Amino acid sequence: MARAYLDWNATTPLCAEARAAMLAACEIVGNPSSVHAEGRAAKSAMERAREEIAAAVGAEGADVIFTSGSTEAAALALAGRGFACSPVEHDAVRAWCGETLATDANGIVTVLDPARSSLQLANSETGVIQSLPDGLGVTDLTQAFGKIAFAFNWLGVTAGFISAHKIGGPKGIGALIVKRGTEIEARIKGGGQEQGRRAGTENLIGIMGFAAAAKAAQNDLDQGKWERVGEIRDSLLATLESGAEDVTFLGRDSRRLPNTLSVLTPGWKGETQVMQMDLAGFAVSAGSACSSGKVRASGVLQAMGISPEHAGDAIRISFGPSTDERDVTRFADAWLTARQRWRERNYGRSTAGKDDHG
Amino acid sequence: MARAYLDWNATTPLCAEARAAMLAACEIVGNPSSVHAEGRAAKSAMERAREEIAAAVGAEGADVIFTSGSTEAAALALAGRGFACSPVEHDAVRAWCGETLATDANGIVTVLDPARSSLQLANSETGVIQSLPDGLGVTDLTQAFGKIAFAFNWLGVTAGFISAHKIGGPKGIGALIVKRGTEIEARIKGGGQEQGRRAGTENLIGIMGFAAAAKAAQNDLDQGKWERVGEIRDSLLATLESGAEDVTFLGRDSRRLPNTLSVLTPGWKGETQVMQMDLAGFAVSAGSACSSGKVRASGVLQAMGISPEHAGDAIRISFGPSTDERDVTRFADAWLTARQRWRERNYGRSTAGKDDHG
Repeated sequence: MARAYLDWNATTPLCAEARAAMLAACEIVGNPSSVHAEGRAAKSAMERAREEIAAAVGAEGADVIFTSGSTEAAALALAGRGFACSPVEHDAVRAWCGETLATDANGIVTVLDPARSSLQLANSETGVIQSLPDGLGVTDLTQAFGKIAFAFNWLGVTAGFISAHKIGGPKGIGALIVKRGTEIEARIKGGGQEQGRRAGTENLIGIMGFAAAAKAAQNDLDQGKWERVGEIRDSLLATLESGAEDVTFLGRDSRRLPNTLSVLTPGWKGETQVMQMDLAGFAVSAGSACSSGKVRASGVLQAMGISPEHAGDAIRISFGPSTDERDVTRFADAWLTARQRWRERNYGRSTAGKDDHG
Repeated sequence: MARAYLDWNATTPLCAEARAAMLAACEIVGNPSSVHAEGRAAKSAMERAREEIAAAVGAEGADVIFTSGSTEAAALALAGRGFACSPVEHDAVRAWCGETLATDANGIVTVLDPARSSLQLANSETGVIQSLPDGLGVTDLTQAFGKIAFAFNWLGVTAGFISAHKIGGPKGIGALIVKRGTEIEARIKGGGQEQGRRAGTENLIGIMGFAAAAKAAQNDLDQGKWERVGEIRDSLLATLESGAEDVTFLGRDSRRLPNTLSVLTPGWKGETQVMQMDLAGFAVSAGSACSSGKVRASGVLQAMGISPEHAGDAIRISFGPSTDERDVTRFADAWLTARQRWRERNYGRSTAGKDDHG
């Protein structure tokens, strides 16, 4: 049986459009900073890509500053600014902000001083979508971009950032988008690229893959492909719920990304679930991808009021338009079977609770 | 007539090995930080690439920290440390250092306090190779790597950096190499990747292209291909010199990269030469690739004692093992012809000097 990749929020498979654009980019010889014909060709391909990305994210007229991804873009937007955020933000945002903003049980964050706050549009673990307050300083658009329709120019924010590998593009390329005229102090200096805001020879192959993926993602959205994704997710939720009544679906009462389901089974460690599902042929995750290979209890879930004892007991299933619905159905069967085994091993015929630390 | 690309020090054509490795990388689905099979496969490909790069640069046992290129690596190694450097360094180094080190007419830098200094192994404009003092803090290996044989482990330095696109790999990926145990404070935070020294989902396609290019570059070196490059360069120098006696070849009395020739014609602006050669079908450059598209008088040449008046009057020709020798010969002819026209226009039959500001 072929494996099923249901961890799109960690990273997506490269889409055909991005792959083709990157192959074409391999033939471009010049450095975009060079003044000769080869350099001008590289520059022009790069600027075309920049415009395509701006169009896809509704940021015409804004500045699109290429970075190595959202993590670098977050540092460029937030480092040294003393902004406020909530613990539901990605570590790349939390690294630079005070975590002073309150989050309710539905995952909704209350912003006190928009201009000096960072708030994600959608959460990677639960898919919960925030209503961004007007005048917001910075927003993390990484998970929302390509999955729900929005336009940067209509969000009322000063800056936002996106990453190619969450929308079918390559890893290692992203962008910080800022309202024209916003002051951004470079953190990588010495070349003058990106209007002096981010030095270094540009990742042209990645940029062209990024633009192709952004265009394709926008087309998928326009064609309603994510509505089908949402139907598959809702059907998965219903199947899991009917077979496992004590589970919690995080953020289910909030507006959420159509592709994300966060399922908490008290006492069954998410890490264990991920490993069992992996052996059964399914890639899912416990919280966001964690570089150390170790899984911590989710700060996102704790911010939503889940106790530290159980905040590590959730898994995230996430997928996309090219996911085969049958893979999701197979996953539901496999997970319910594994859950039944776990219950029998831990609770036997009684209902006395006992944690599984395996 | 096909164009001849003679600006390898700005960026190289992507080599076949890198292209093939990147195509293979396109098929890898996982995020190297994910714990499932797809994640582990990505991680394992990345770590294999890291080892191949370490081997190619003679840095076995050292830490190879992937960055978006040499410019970011320079910031990671140098920002906030108050190191000393010479004006012959790349802007990415000069941005973080005091330019207090003296340079002689041959381009050789005198280092006073090695542990607190940054010194390039080879210069991008002139190709001049430095003897690195033992105990040097940081070295820019970007232009030397792949063109001359050296081993990081034998240089006696604490840190060095390299960039894939100077050796036939893709733009936008590079590495900081540090002696194991060296403390490096992350500038991009929030994921824990690269042992906490550089956060962000890794540019896997770029990394695999980088490793393939590094291996190929090492093979080319081992097979003596750069000796042929050196012969072509020497023959170019001889041709230009015999046809244009008043020119200066920068750094000609120093040990230099085999592929680089910096030619100064007093009074004939480098910018003009680059445009004329571009129209004639040849890509060369005036100094290092400059992001603004404008060419400034070279700080490198001024550090070597060339007057500000004439430091903008040089061009750099640089090429590599796959360059067709006939293209270099054609370039010499075209350049000598253009030079003859420039002399006739500016000096007529007399020898009175007159600058060309066209």
